[in-house]
Amino acid sequence: LDLGGTFLKYALGTREGEILLKDKKPSEADQPRAAVFRVMFEAIDEMVKAGAEFQGVVRAIGCGSPGSVDFDRGKLLGNTPNITDWGNADIRGEIEGRFGLPTWVDNDANVMTLAEAECGAAKGFRHVIAITLGTGIGGGIMVNGSIYRGGHYAGAELGHVSVQFDGLACNCGGRGCIEQYASAPAMVRNYMEKLRQKSRDVSQTVTTKTIFTQAAKGEQEAIKTIDETCEYLGAALASIVNIFNPEIIVIGGGVADAGDEFIAQIWSALKSRAMPPSLKGLRLVHAELGNDAGVVGAIRLAACMYDRIEKGPCE
Amino acid sequence: LDLGGTFLKYALGTREGEILLKDKKPSEADQPRAAVFRVMFEAIDEMVKAGAEFQGVVRAIGCGSPGSVDFDRGKLLGNTPNITDWGNADIRGEIEGRFGLPTWVDNDANVMTLAEAECGAAKGFRHVIAITLGTGIGGGIMVNGSIYRGGHYAGAELGHVSVQFDGLACNCGGRGCIEQYASAPAMVRNYMEKLRQKSRDVSQTVTTKTIFTQAAKGEQEAIKTIDETCEYLGAALASIVNIFNPEIIVIGGGVADAGDEFIAQIWSALKSRAMPPSLKGLRLVHAELGNDAGVVGAIRLAACMYDRIEKGPCE
Repeated sequence: LDLGGTFLKYALGTREGEILLKDKKPSEADQPRAAVFRVMFEAIDEMVKAGAEFQGVVRAIGCGSPGSVDFDRGKLLGNTPNITDWGNADIRGEIEGRFGLPTWVDNDANVMTLAEAECGAAKGFRHVIAITLGTGIGGGIMVNGSIYRGGHYAGAELGHVSVQFDGLACNCGGRGCIEQYASAPAMVRNYMEKLRQKSRDVSQTVTTKTIFTQAAKGEQEAIKTIDETCEYLGAALASIVNIFNPEIIVIGGGVADAGDEFIAQIWSALKSRAMPPSLKGLRLVHAELGNDAGVVGAIRLAACMYDRIEKGPCE
Repeated sequence: LDLGGTFLKYALGTREGEILLKDKKPSEADQPRAAVFRVMFEAIDEMVKAGAEFQGVVRAIGCGSPGSVDFDRGKLLGNTPNITDWGNADIRGEIEGRFGLPTWVDNDANVMTLAEAECGAAKGFRHVIAITLGTGIGGGIMVNGSIYRGGHYAGAELGHVSVQFDGLACNCGGRGCIEQYASAPAMVRNYMEKLRQKSRDVSQTVTTKTIFTQAAKGEQEAIKTIDETCEYLGAALASIVNIFNPEIIVIGGGVADAGDEFIAQIWSALKSRAMPPSLKGLRLVHAELGNDAGVVGAIRLAACMYDRIEKGPCE
């Protein structure tokens, strides 16, 4: 299960993370939590039934959810802005109570990181940073082959690495967070400002796609917006690289879909700022799993944890 | 062994990290590497002999060294500025070759972090950030109870977290690194500039101690220098806290010896910038082991790794 503010995506998969069947339903995120759980239950019902058609049995359930998740208990910690009535939701408790199947729940960015690290762009690497550029900037960290969740499940907030001491106020309470400089809304805001400075038409609806299209046509304001975004991302990633010395950084999310040149430009900014020993052997790549990352990660989460129950913690 | 640019500190200790005997010698850091090894060999000889006086036997050797260290091979990776002829030095190879005792070598900041986490200010915690404020700013990271060394042993460069996008050029090649704003030389530079702006005498020799003494007397330039240092440190630590969600941050090094008020001021800046969920339960404390941290960490490193050989990797 990959629960989001708009859709619940769900899939049936093999231990290895191969998707056998997938679908999605509106997640009813503005309804009371019982409605959200109802959608999840229906999805699980479908997948359990479908299991038989594949001559298999559903053994375990994995779920990614927005918000901070107490991984050891499978519960939300506090609220999440995108699902109205989701505060402290006991996702594992509700699902295990109804289906009697072992269930693991993690933050959605962690689940996507697991997916890319085990089945996607970072396959085979053990020190992975994943960063998602969209409405916000999210991230996940894999350290020695394990997802790093922080001391109290609140780590990996890579969108809230500050790049500017006296910078823009962020809604996290901080200042100069990279999310204020390189998320989709930040790019649009930056671009519109440049248009305004040139007294150009600002009545149009602009998305990051518009900006990349205009840049491809040679429009200076769009090119400059992208340049600045990449410079800021390079600065934030330089701090992250100096701290982690990862083997690979995976960049995903809508903004990153712009293509290889965008990734190359971020790399160039990163290279000019990070410490040479930390850059050695480092790769910066585009995410591979796209919209499937959430369900692939949830399948792998369930498979890994289930294997641990079966084989014991040392294997 | 705790090898530094001025002294080799060394000690004999118990498995638990208790120091039985300690001493130091000039490290001959400006001499050819054979001279540095000779100093280390003499120190080990003394400790091995002393072992018998304590009715014990030296079983293993731990060593902290400046520079990037390939922990799995016990060798330097590249050079380190403070020891002239130390590039790629095979510390483990030389010591094991001569003494036949299992030897482990790690970067000195990692060794100090291990010491504080196992025997000092962060005892009992599993998610620890240690940061040392001195001529440079160094750091160490403990994740799930293990020192995090990065994908290629180049991680935990916490002095090179950037706080200012267009900030001061750093000798690491980056820009706006916290080392340029909160190390001892940065504080002194900042303070001298403030004196100059007021056309005050700048012929005196100033250290961070001078600044703290002047601040205690109410001198505005000194107070302002300390305020700014703490604000910058708070900004860098906010990024680190948002990434790691550590349980505890240990601050050590000469600058941090200024006292509790300095730590309290950093905490206040950190609190105003980091994300509330990441701050929950977080402690910011002064290092406890002071000058002994290096040898205590080296003892614990040897003890932990030796136990692993004896008991196998799963315990």
